Amino acid sequence: MPEPGELGGAKTSRPIRLVRLVNRLMADPGVSIRLQELGAATGAAKSTLSEDVATIDRALEAEGRGYVERTLGPAGGVRYLPFPAPDKTEAALDELATELSRPERRLQGGFLYLTDIVFSPQWVSRLGEIFASLFAAGQPDMVLTVETKGIPLALMTARALGIPLAVARREAGMTEGPALGLNYLSGTARRMGTMTLARRAVPEGSRVLIIDDFLKGGGTARGLVDMMAEFNAEVTGIGVLIATKDPEEKLVDDFVALLELAADNDSAGAAFQLTRQLKLAPRRSGGRA
Amino acid sequence: MPEPGELGGAKTSRPIRLVRLVNRLMADPGVSIRLQELGAATGAAKSTLSEDVATIDRALEAEGRGYVERTLGPAGGVRYLPFPAPDKTEAALDELATELSRPERRLQGGFLYLTDIVFSPQWVSRLGEIFASLFAAGQPDMVLTVETKGIPLALMTARALGIPLAVARREAGMTEGPALGLNYLSGTARRMGTMTLARRAVPEGSRVLIIDDFLKGGGTARGLVDMMAEFNAEVTGIGVLIATKDPEEKLVDDFVALLELAADNDSAGAAFQLTRQLKLAPRRSGGRA
Repeated sequence: MPEPGELGGAKTSRPIRLVRLVNRLMADPGVSIRLQELGAATGAAKSTLSEDVATIDRALEAEGRGYVERTLGPAGGVRYLPFPAPDKTEAALDELATELSRPERRLQGGFLYLTDIVFSPQWVSRLGEIFASLFAAGQPDMVLTVETKGIPLALMTARALGIPLAVARREAGMTEGPALGLNYLSGTARRMGTMTLARRAVPEGSRVLIIDDFLKGGGTARGLVDMMAEFNAEVTGIGVLIATKDPEEKLVDDFVALLELAADNDSAGAAFQLTRQLKLAPRRSGGRA
Repeated sequence: MPEPGELGGAKTSRPIRLVRLVNRLMADPGVSIRLQELGAATGAAKSTLSEDVATIDRALEAEGRGYVERTLGPAGGVRYLPFPAPDKTEAALDELATELSRPERRLQGGFLYLTDIVFSPQWVSRLGEIFASLFAAGQPDMVLTVETKGIPLALMTARALGIPLAVARREAGMTEGPALGLNYLSGTARRMGTMTLARRAVPEGSRVLIIDDFLKGGGTARGLVDMMAEFNAEVTGIGVLIATKDPEEKLVDDFVALLELAADNDSAGAAFQLTRQLKLAPRRSGGRA
């Protein structure tokens, strides 16, 4: 049986309205939606919507599933920030460290198979929300990565923050208009890499958050930082899923690694151990980042 | 003021429960969640949850925002399928065609700048849901693409269906274990391309949905189809964001293009026109795919 107001009439019942509001807010996390627009979609008055939004905020925050933020000003509205609570972040990363430590993931040459994880919609969605929660305070207005395996993580980080993504290419992207190319020392400085990025991909003065899947020597991250200097853009943070313990000396200083990989390439079978690198302070009362 | 039951007690109020259920279902669309698990998270009885799920289903479907499906069997549960209604799909694609037809997007050499769109979290999220709605009937159990620009679209399609993603590389991925390499004729047969894919990325017997951003001659899609034959996997469909009108003869027959690009490379300024290719029949009563 249809409930009153659920068939698109001028007024909708509260349960129906809450369902649609959560759906709308979660469809584009990080993006501010004007109350006026939500009112038109639900037929509810502004004061009613404000109560609904407060209920949604409390319901999600008490579960550690993020919160709903009121933005002020003429374009003011509400947006959902899907930032997981610290205990949820730590539990997810511990689970991932266990999964990645499974012996079947050891490849010849001391490599770790993590392709399925960095392309898993469910994992990258969670990890993107974690990166977003860690770097939101720097107020980035775009996310940058370099192809290929960091793309899903960077995309989901950008999605959780409601900001665009730019992707540097390993070879000249001839079909993207004028581009800036840059040589950099990859990995442990054993080979030279090239990356290019379309000029129009990063506007001058952008505040850029760099996200990648793996950091060893830090050469790629260094290249991305140098590239942003060429674009007159500011780097607000560098986040990687996994950083290797060795070499201890990296080509970038300030990065956040979610997991640390301690590899023992000398032993037969390329033993390795993954541990959660990140330790989070419990949130202040109220739970806001 | 907290509402009754919202602070994590054994029982939660209906508004709080609905908010958390929608949040949980939307966090991993396409993935089935057992009612038992939802019950533990909300402290609600199975019959109560069934009513809640029915309310959520009706509220979303009446808005053309997908629906909630009950899955049967021992692992039975509920999952959210974020398949937009046909009129919403057509409106989104018309909006995209208009955006892509803007003169600023014309690049020298007759190319079209669409990098910002295929890396936009908001656009690829919508487009992934559209692809998912079009290809769900083929019951794919994974999505396949080739680097680079198709990755976000393919990821979000996989996410909307709740299935994994595999990404073929343009060069040998040495760090992903044993891989299969394949040569193919790219674009309009003017150059030879190589793609490789880790053996373990696609299990034998997989039902694979191919998603990419752009199709001209169809050589890349043909290469992916041939590669799936080598993996003993079945291709259930091919979806591309944009197909060019010319050449009319493509190297694959059965593909679905959301938009068609008619380019006039002879004219100065590389004029082009984008139109919605897809025409959808209105859904049957009830709106299920």
